[in-house]
Amino acid sequence: MAVVVQNIQRADQSVIDRLAACGVATVHEAQGRKGLLASYMRPIYSGARLAASAVTILAPPGDNWMLHVAIEQIKPGDILLLAPTSSCEDGYFGDLLATSAQARGCNGLIIDAGVRDVADLTEMKFPVWSKAIFAQGTVKETPGSVNVPVVCAGAYVRPGDIIVADDDGVCVVLREEAEAVATKAETRVAAEEAKRKRLAAGELGLDIYDMRGRLAEKGLKYI
Amino acid sequence: MAVVVQNIQRADQSVIDRLAACGVATVHEAQGRKGLLASYMRPIYSGARLAASAVTILAPPGDNWMLHVAIEQIKPGDILLLAPTSSCEDGYFGDLLATSAQARGCNGLIIDAGVRDVADLTEMKFPVWSKAIFAQGTVKETPGSVNVPVVCAGAYVRPGDIIVADDDGVCVVLREEAEAVATKAETRVAAEEAKRKRLAAGELGLDIYDMRGRLAEKGLKYI
Amino acid sequence: MAVVVQNIQRADQSVIDRLAACGVATVHEAQGRKGLLASYMRPIYSGARLAASAVTILAPPGDNWMLHVAIEQIKPGDILLLAPTSSCEDGYFGDLLATSAQARGCNGLIIDAGVRDVADLTEMKFPVWSKAIFAQGTVKETPGSVNVPVVCAGAYVRPGDIIVADDDGVCVVLREEAEAVATKAETRVAAEEAKRKRLAAGELGLDIYDMRGRLAEKGLKYI
Amino acid sequence: MAVVVQNIQRADQSVIDRLAACGVATVHEAQGRKGLLASYMRPIYSGARLAASAVTILAPPGDNWMLHVAIEQIKPGDILLLAPTSSCEDGYFGDLLATSAQARGCNGLIIDAGVRDVADLTEMKFPVWSKAIFAQGTVKETPGSVNVPVVCAGAYVRPGDIIVADDDGVCVVLREEAEAVATKAETRVAAEEAKRKRLAAGELGLDIYDMRGRLAEKGLKYI
Amino acid sequence: MAVVVQNIQRADQSVIDRLAACGVATVHEAQGRKGLLASYMRPIYSGARLAASAVTILAPPGDNWMLHVAIEQIKPGDILLLAPTSSCEDGYFGDLLATSAQARGCNGLIIDAGVRDVADLTEMKFPVWSKAIFAQGTVKETPGSVNVPVVCAGAYVRPGDIIVADDDGVCVVLREEAEAVATKAETRVAAEEAKRKRLAAGELGLDIYDMRGRLAEKGLKYI
Amino acid sequence: MAVVVQNIQRADQSVIDRLAACGVATVHEAQGRKGLLASYMRPIYSGARLAASAVTILAPPGDNWMLHVAIEQIKPGDILLLAPTSSCEDGYFGDLLATSAQARGCNGLIIDAGVRDVADLTEMKFPVWSKAIFAQGTVKETPGSVNVPVVCAGAYVRPGDIIVADDDGVCVVLREEAEAVATKAETRVAAEEAKRKRLAAGELGLDIYDMRGRLAEKGLKYI
Repeated sequence: MAVVVQNIQRADQSVIDRLAACGVATVHEAQGRKGLLASYMRPIYSGARLAASAVTILAPPGDNWMLHVAIEQIKPGDILLLAPTSSCEDGYFGDLLATSAQARGCNGLIIDAGVRDVADLTEMKFPVWSKAIFAQGTVKETPGSVNVPVVCAGAYVRPGDIIVADDDGVCVVLREEAEAVATKAETRVAAEEAKRKRLAAGELGLDIYDMRGRLAEKGLKYI
Repeated sequence: MAVVVQNIQRADQSVIDRLAACGVATVHEAQGRKGLLASYMRPIYSGARLAASAVTILAPPGDNWMLHVAIEQIKPGDILLLAPTSSCEDGYFGDLLATSAQARGCNGLIIDAGVRDVADLTEMKFPVWSKAIFAQGTVKETPGSVNVPVVCAGAYVRPGDIIVADDDGVCVVLREEAEAVATKAETRVAAEEAKRKRLAAGELGLDIYDMRGRLAEKGLKYI
Repeated sequence: MAVVVQNIQRADQSVIDRLAACGVATVHEAQGRKGLLASYMRPIYSGARLAASAVTILAPPGDNWMLHVAIEQIKPGDILLLAPTSSCEDGYFGDLLATSAQARGCNGLIIDAGVRDVADLTEMKFPVWSKAIFAQGTVKETPGSVNVPVVCAGAYVRPGDIIVADDDGVCVVLREEAEAVATKAETRVAAEEAKRKRLAAGELGLDIYDMRGRLAEKGLKYI
Repeated sequence: MAVVVQNIQRADQSVIDRLAACGVATVHEAQGRKGLLASYMRPIYSGARLAASAVTILAPPGDNWMLHVAIEQIKPGDILLLAPTSSCEDGYFGDLLATSAQARGCNGLIIDAGVRDVADLTEMKFPVWSKAIFAQGTVKETPGSVNVPVVCAGAYVRPGDIIVADDDGVCVVLREEAEAVATKAETRVAAEEAKRKRLAAGELGLDIYDMRGRLAEKGLKYI
Repeated sequence: MAVVVQNIQRADQSVIDRLAACGVATVHEAQGRKGLLASYMRPIYSGARLAASAVTILAPPGDNWMLHVAIEQIKPGDILLLAPTSSCEDGYFGDLLATSAQARGCNGLIIDAGVRDVADLTEMKFPVWSKAIFAQGTVKETPGSVNVPVVCAGAYVRPGDIIVADDDGVCVVLREEAEAVATKAETRVAAEEAKRKRLAAGELGLDIYDMRGRLAEKGLKYI
Repeated sequence: MAVVVQNIQRADQSVIDRLAACGVATVHEAQGRKGLLASYMRPIYSGARLAASAVTILAPPGDNWMLHVAIEQIKPGDILLLAPTSSCEDGYFGDLLATSAQARGCNGLIIDAGVRDVADLTEMKFPVWSKAIFAQGTVKETPGSVNVPVVCAGAYVRPGDIIVADDDGVCVVLREEAEAVATKAETRVAAEEAKRKRLAAGELGLDIYDMRGRLAEKGLKYI
């Protein structure tokens, strides 16, 4: 049950970059409002924005052994994503692991648990989205798995799926849908630009989207 | 049941400005320690401080249609305040709605739910106090109401009541009490100035407020 | 039951300073992974880092009277630590109390409850780690105790124990163990430096810590 | 600010009884899906079901003095409803207060805080819906108010409004709408009876409510 | 994106019955400690215990339309399992839907949201494991999907997977692993019987499992 | 750091029995409103009521090894009390461990984590007060300690202190204060009996406790 899958497929970097440019909210909408991780997943500092292929980790509560195992599986540009086997806030990850991960080309960490040394990680510009900031130490006693599908903060993530993360939170895109989602997201961005100008000029969404009739039909009354 | 009240009364702008100058903690004390919204209502960025008349919104969970309706009801200087009909963290509001609201003179948003595009909103200097930051998209299917009394994050708010918000959170002041509260708050600010100087000089609150006798009476022992 | 213990023992300032230099995560590990306060204790601003002797306060919910009593007991370099007798988020502490505490040499506040005037406290560089930011006012009716042992955010703290606090949270060190913990923490910092260099050069923790054999023994399979 | 309003208006007992017979879920639907208290308000034992006029209490955290004041204001058939001025789980109410309230004709208690002596209250058949079961004692130091409007567990309740409570939770009905709501609720109960028979016979809601066309229009596909 | 998958595969009833006989804790252990839903999923009444094939539902927050759609897809012995697209506590399900589901042979409901009419459901012996008991009504405006994979209370569930539920909570077993898991679970039950007798006779686990040596090796000291 | 303290002192059984007879709420009041565990500690079934000497356990998250070690330290009439080293809901304890503990004379379990097999434990009449009911399995890899002081659900508990538990929750009494607390608690019970009669006869607490004058002094107004 404790396995490391060594060769995983990743999406093209060009598609990953296009998703990063669109951001979490747009990508989430473009793929039909799915794939968001829970709202408690918050960045340790503001302003980070990225997309990357997920190297997934399933780890016991309070045991960070598999992070060492996972770092060997990283290819430059990847992101680590850790889901504990049961609810946990312990600090699985700190500055030494970040140094190691960054040296191997890792772009960041998504962890449905705790992280520590956040002042150092901020200085290193190693972004983390986590459930908690907590210094609680962990053991290295029980193997978990690397690069297996996991449920992380309420979202199902497979190794090689694309993680998009920014100040709004974290979203996962299926690898095989990445290109189509990127295209839809870009279309959405373009369409929003035109709307933004009209709204900035004072036009109302009620008129731009022609909502008044349907609101009346549904029974909205002005008094 | 789905109604939009179009003409609401607002307090004088001069009174609203006086409340803004005093801030949440002082206003809350001045009006007898009432009117605070729950502590989970946090600003998306630090440093915003304002007071404004509330345009209230009652909306179903996961349905942001009424925000479009409410924006038409804004007068320059107002603030939007949204309460969902049941507990919800979805991202009702993002950069397009903020662009529209800002174009109509809206000063910010209080929302007992989620907000998204927070990097954009921060850059636009459009302040939001919310329960969550969450990209989750919403539908436009079920009308709610605009400018009806609501319970928002544990506080009862009527349209036209004054919202005071800063880094400490959010407080509501009854429109008809606004002037009296502003006066009491200013008195309080002035009184605090004198006390601050004495405390800064090393005098103890125990002496300034003459507490030692009453503490002894209530049984406090020094050992 | 309502008592103020006036003379408490404190660790040597030099030891306290050594603990501050090591930080929360390292000190917590050095003392055998104990003494952490709960992860919900967060700083009101980033970047503060300190160690100080605790002046402890046990206070009823919504009653901040004992803070005035405690400030008289402060010696320069101390930190206040408040535990409510039952769960509470009210704003026990604001800018006036901070002015008073700072004037007496107090370095900060740890409070398993709420704090207010956080914009002012940030400007004053008076660091607070709290459960909540909340303007809710409090009364002065019921005495509690000062400098008695308390449970604060899940940790047992005695007056004169050393509090270490930074962006990772808050940790308590027993006064009588402070010197030994400081020494172990410094050893740990030194040892980490060497590891950090090897990790930064791309060596894996799997190899540095010689983990591969033990992982295989415990059943980890590569596929 | 600390007031006791002595004469409040109550709905007719016959209307109150009709609401009790319909239960929380039906009454909530009949009045347009409003008035529910938060889902964390749970009964201390199963099977209680009642409707009663609210005698409201606004009380400081950890201070149960006003319960004594409120009990004098009870008329037979009333229910006590307590909202703390800030979030609190303390045990404001136990077997002695229940004995007193029951002796005055009180039917139960709704409390957005804690209750204790629940084994005794269960034996006395004195129903309580509360946020917590917690033995934590309270003080009698700070007056609050009786029979003023309050926000209780997210719902706005005025003295004399009707509380409906059962195993599904708690709902408030405006006194002036009570008769109309009772009539609509009874109509709803009658209508449900016919539907229940058809559903019990195996007919589908899809057919009874003629949903298939509208689902197809909205894009539902069968595969 | 809104689809109903009409033909799903189910495990053999005999295997399902074997899993039911073993219960949640044993099945969870037998399959390698995976598949548990979050601990907040609690039964509305004690004593229910079952296993059944899942008919899965993905539904918008506060919209229960798809329950009607799903009921048509039930085969006798199935269980409904609903996951909202974002966090929600509304009461999607009550006595009418239960009547309909029960008439079609449905055994119960797993819902990561709210349920109402729990007194009726208890009387009907229709078991529900839910996140909340809440009367809040829902709309029928936005289609979701039936019989697609979902994440429910932190567990990934595909249509036709087997749900095991009892007073300890809810566990999901992959359809293709059901037989192997049932066999392992039964082996475990048998093995436990022998241990139970020895433990009941006063033998210690320390001796039965021969733990003393390994504890000493790991550094445990008796003092 | 991983130690088992083998000989602990216990209070006299007669004192323990007197505390059990008084119950949690009365004992908590009698000892000055201290020693309560958090309100989230709930019994797995209603109606259990006991007092017992605590055999304390400090255990890593998700590791139940020390329960086996602790059971050897039980003397008839003791209760086990487990605190995890960091927040955890896993099911450390089930029917086999309960069988073993019961065979050694153990009266129950207090656990700031999860428990499983609750249907079996209920049938065995083995009472447990826990943070969660959760089947999640645990490992046996890392020693903790037995019979050391711990913080459990917010209360500081030393081995041999007396645990009082009933439907209201859990309270700890210091061993050296047990006799005095029992006497005060019994006095309180006796005093309450007289008051209960007067209250049952319709007298008001306002009059029995002579509160009207003090309420008026504090500013309470009747209108």
